[in-house]
Amino acid sequence: MTTTAPAEAGPTGYSLPLSPTGASAMLTPPPWHFSGDVIMVDYRVDPEAAARFLPPGLSLGADPGAAAAVFAEWQWCSESGEELDDPQRSQFTEFLILLACEYEGVPMARCPYAWVDSPVPMMRGWVQGMPKQFGSVHQTRPKSVGLAGPKPNAPGRHAGTLSVHGRRVAEMAVRAERRIEQPPLLHTVPLVHTRVFPTWTSSAPPVAELVSSEVTGVEFGEIWAGGAELRFPSPLDDDFAGLAPVEIGQGYVFAYAETLCGGRLLQA
Amino acid sequence: MTTTAPAEAGPTGYSLPLSPTGASAMLTPPPWHFSGDVIMVDYRVDPEAAARFLPPGLSLGADPGAAAAVFAEWQWCSESGEELDDPQRSQFTEFLILLACEYEGVPMARCPYAWVDSPVPMMRGWVQGMPKQFGSVHQTRPKSVGLAGPKPNAPGRHAGTLSVHGRRVAEMAVRAERRIEQPPLLHTVPLVHTRVFPTWTSSAPPVAELVSSEVTGVEFGEIWAGGAELRFPSPLDDDFAGLAPVEIGQGYVFAYAETLCGGRLLQA
Amino acid sequence: MTTTAPAEAGPTGYSLPLSPTGASAMLTPPPWHFSGDVIMVDYRVDPEAAARFLPPGLSLGADPGAAAAVFAEWQWCSESGEELDDPQRSQFTEFLILLACEYEGVPMARCPYAWVDSPVPMMRGWVQGMPKQFGSVHQTRPKSVGLAGPKPNAPGRHAGTLSVHGRRVAEMAVRAERRIEQPPLLHTVPLVHTRVFPTWTSSAPPVAELVSSEVTGVEFGEIWAGGAELRFPSPLDDDFAGLAPVEIGQGYVFAYAETLCGGRLLQA
Amino acid sequence: MTTTAPAEAGPTGYSLPLSPTGASAMLTPPPWHFSGDVIMVDYRVDPEAAARFLPPGLSLGADPGAAAAVFAEWQWCSESGEELDDPQRSQFTEFLILLACEYEGVPMARCPYAWVDSPVPMMRGWVQGMPKQFGSVHQTRPKSVGLAGPKPNAPGRHAGTLSVHGRRVAEMAVRAERRIEQPPLLHTVPLVHTRVFPTWTSSAPPVAELVSSEVTGVEFGEIWAGGAELRFPSPLDDDFAGLAPVEIGQGYVFAYAETLCGGRLLQA
Repeated sequence: MTTTAPAEAGPTGYSLPLSPTGASAMLTPPPWHFSGDVIMVDYRVDPEAAARFLPPGLSLGADPGAAAAVFAEWQWCSESGEELDDPQRSQFTEFLILLACEYEGVPMARCPYAWVDSPVPMMRGWVQGMPKQFGSVHQTRPKSVGLAGPKPNAPGRHAGTLSVHGRRVAEMAVRAERRIEQPPLLHTVPLVHTRVFPTWTSSAPPVAELVSSEVTGVEFGEIWAGGAELRFPSPLDDDFAGLAPVEIGQGYVFAYAETLCGGRLLQA
Repeated sequence: MTTTAPAEAGPTGYSLPLSPTGASAMLTPPPWHFSGDVIMVDYRVDPEAAARFLPPGLSLGADPGAAAAVFAEWQWCSESGEELDDPQRSQFTEFLILLACEYEGVPMARCPYAWVDSPVPMMRGWVQGMPKQFGSVHQTRPKSVGLAGPKPNAPGRHAGTLSVHGRRVAEMAVRAERRIEQPPLLHTVPLVHTRVFPTWTSSAPPVAELVSSEVTGVEFGEIWAGGAELRFPSPLDDDFAGLAPVEIGQGYVFAYAETLCGGRLLQA
Repeated sequence: MTTTAPAEAGPTGYSLPLSPTGASAMLTPPPWHFSGDVIMVDYRVDPEAAARFLPPGLSLGADPGAAAAVFAEWQWCSESGEELDDPQRSQFTEFLILLACEYEGVPMARCPYAWVDSPVPMMRGWVQGMPKQFGSVHQTRPKSVGLAGPKPNAPGRHAGTLSVHGRRVAEMAVRAERRIEQPPLLHTVPLVHTRVFPTWTSSAPPVAELVSSEVTGVEFGEIWAGGAELRFPSPLDDDFAGLAPVEIGQGYVFAYAETLCGGRLLQA
Repeated sequence: MTTTAPAEAGPTGYSLPLSPTGASAMLTPPPWHFSGDVIMVDYRVDPEAAARFLPPGLSLGADPGAAAAVFAEWQWCSESGEELDDPQRSQFTEFLILLACEYEGVPMARCPYAWVDSPVPMMRGWVQGMPKQFGSVHQTRPKSVGLAGPKPNAPGRHAGTLSVHGRRVAEMAVRAERRIEQPPLLHTVPLVHTRVFPTWTSSAPPVAELVSSEVTGVEFGEIWAGGAELRFPSPLDDDFAGLAPVEIGQGYVFAYAETLCGGRLLQA
């Protein structure tokens, strides 16, 4: 993969800012390694509302209206691993919504909304076609000793909150009650995104490509499941409000890791 | 200008996130109106270092090594003006570096580095080709009464600071001493950027287009000039360090406004 | 005034942290100079609710239920003025509520709630007896050029927002319509606070002193008045909810400065 | 323990803000439960510099110049545990320095400097006499799966960083190499603080009391030890600079919990 721009003489880099050696680029090229802790709730939305979020080429698939809400606290690094020595740069939290869908008969997940609390992951989201915006995202951390929090890999209550522009947009709670073997379906299928680079000059139509993410090194820790709560107290706009829960399913707590290697073009 | 993506049926919007009506897009389409307060210092860099930041098509021009460092505190709104009712969304601060350059004989300014403290302006930067990253940017605010700060449009000392990842990257101070009529040159010429959308799928080379920004409604308030200080205490990397001041010129304090309408493609 | 602690040999300082020379103290001793821009709305609360916020010694006075909500964007410095060279340290925003009251026949204002976005002003609040907590506080900045905001000292719309723990707690808008001469009453009377230092050892009852603030150097800029909006969308608790507006009065926009010199003990 | 102020009729609460029912107080009364993850380095300072940070009543003790630097990521809750459902409120990070000392022959630890990233823990610090200021504090999180971080309770590298006002004040790294049984000494002795409530009215001298913290429910997880790095790149002032490492000892990584119940008055 050619990962630098521009290719000729002149400043270079995987992304802006371009610089003489490429060292100043805000983004390192993939692969990117992620290790995280996830709190997730299965829920159902109005299938017609979900369908309005799917671009041509995607359909609702076998279970119309299946959705999930996901909080994750990530640590990441590039191939070199050097970001890990500066924890401020290698940590972020994320909240996202997933809609079940299908592309050419293959079950996939569509992410209509996502928020992170760190600029590099936000920008990397746009490179992938993942619509990451900036938010204040917090979730319970399992603690191995003491009274202030649930233990890792044990029964206990885990909460997550998202605020955007000073308003509480999402709240979740999961009661880890029992260990299960099967990961939640929407966390196992490929993500399918639309890479969009907005138009700027009148001559250039916007880039808009349907792509699926390519990951390796997927690992799940123990998966705990149980009852769940999910609320969207202050919807951002009417489109977002259309994805409000009409039914709330099971909740999950698990550790998860993957390496994101790039994307596969489905259609341009 | 076609500003929505994708054009067919399906979710739409000027940018991600796409949604049924387009209402969820993080970015509104241009034009964008900006009203700001600027603290700026002319300085000189090693001309060879500056040249290494210029892509093919640009040359150093008549004054090789001329540069400027700019702090600005902005308020912005879209055509509708609705962002102004939520000040948290309509305000941001910015620090940027400008290098004098020339395109086909026309003097322009190249911005090798920029930082803002708000995600929407950061992302809008990338749409324009302006390499905005996230930083902690602060500058003195003129105050019309009392002892805690300089008065607007009067002699006084104005300071600016940039920190990135918890390190102090730039510090500036300008002593407004006298009113002048002529705006500082590098704040009057067009900006020339490289729009970069990094590669993601092996089949797609990165987007990389040389564009100049198109602005209207330029307004300057009173321009005050005087002695200046400029330091880069913790350089981010060796490329950035190459743009350290070898000579510090005059400083300026002024209010400035413009409307950013889009870009003109110079070469793709 | 003896301003250092402890008095004997040993580390010293106006506040924690104590250090060999006192240089590390988080707070400088008063006087503190403040220059600010204020957006303020007169409103009325249920007088019985207001009375429940008044400690013994204070009564509702001549206009029971008179209240005000105030947004202010401050720059501050100590006697040395050195904080002004580090704008990050010398700027903060504030939202507070004021209740009309009376002490021994003298009209005063009681501040039941206040929020700032910076730790030094928060801690200084507790030294004064002002109940400052941490919040996300934003208000419109007048801009002298361009389309993105009202002009200073001119008709225009000014907004303010407060979020606490990711929830929108207060929203205000004032339409500056006409210049007036008389400052709003509740911004001219002394503030009366209860200095509280919570108990920690069983032998020590909490400090709780009724004090009024002593200010000099009061300056008002032009005062503009007009119609106003005020909402408390997400009350923090039932006590706070008791101070919701039952009637909304006039709004004001003005610059304001003062020097805070210390407090006068009314009763211990 | 009497924990509310004032005792008579009128608004009440453990701390400001006082309100009709006490529900608005920023601080809940102790006990406070803490569960945390700690990265710690033993080091040595100039004993004369350390002595200058000790108030009358404390001496350097058996090992003059023994010190430690501690990063901790905490989750906390009050007796009710209700804060845990809002992770934004129940999490904070902390960096602190400890100096070995002795009070009446009993080994204790003195904390000359501490920083946290959350206002409630900062204010609670001042109630205890712990000189907590606001900083940007980050440390490596152990992750049970994947490549982005060390595993919990296993060999690996852990880092911590502190920035204050946009400058990097402390950096630490610990290589967990082997499990040990004995906790690091300075994390096992009582903390001895000076409770300071600055003076405000001319009639009131500042409160200044020597107190030791009373904790129960101490729990250590597995303790891993190994080589360590510690740097203070941008000292805040000359007093702080006096505590720079003259020798760096062993590093530790462990989980830790305690319940903080109040303080014991040593001398007023």
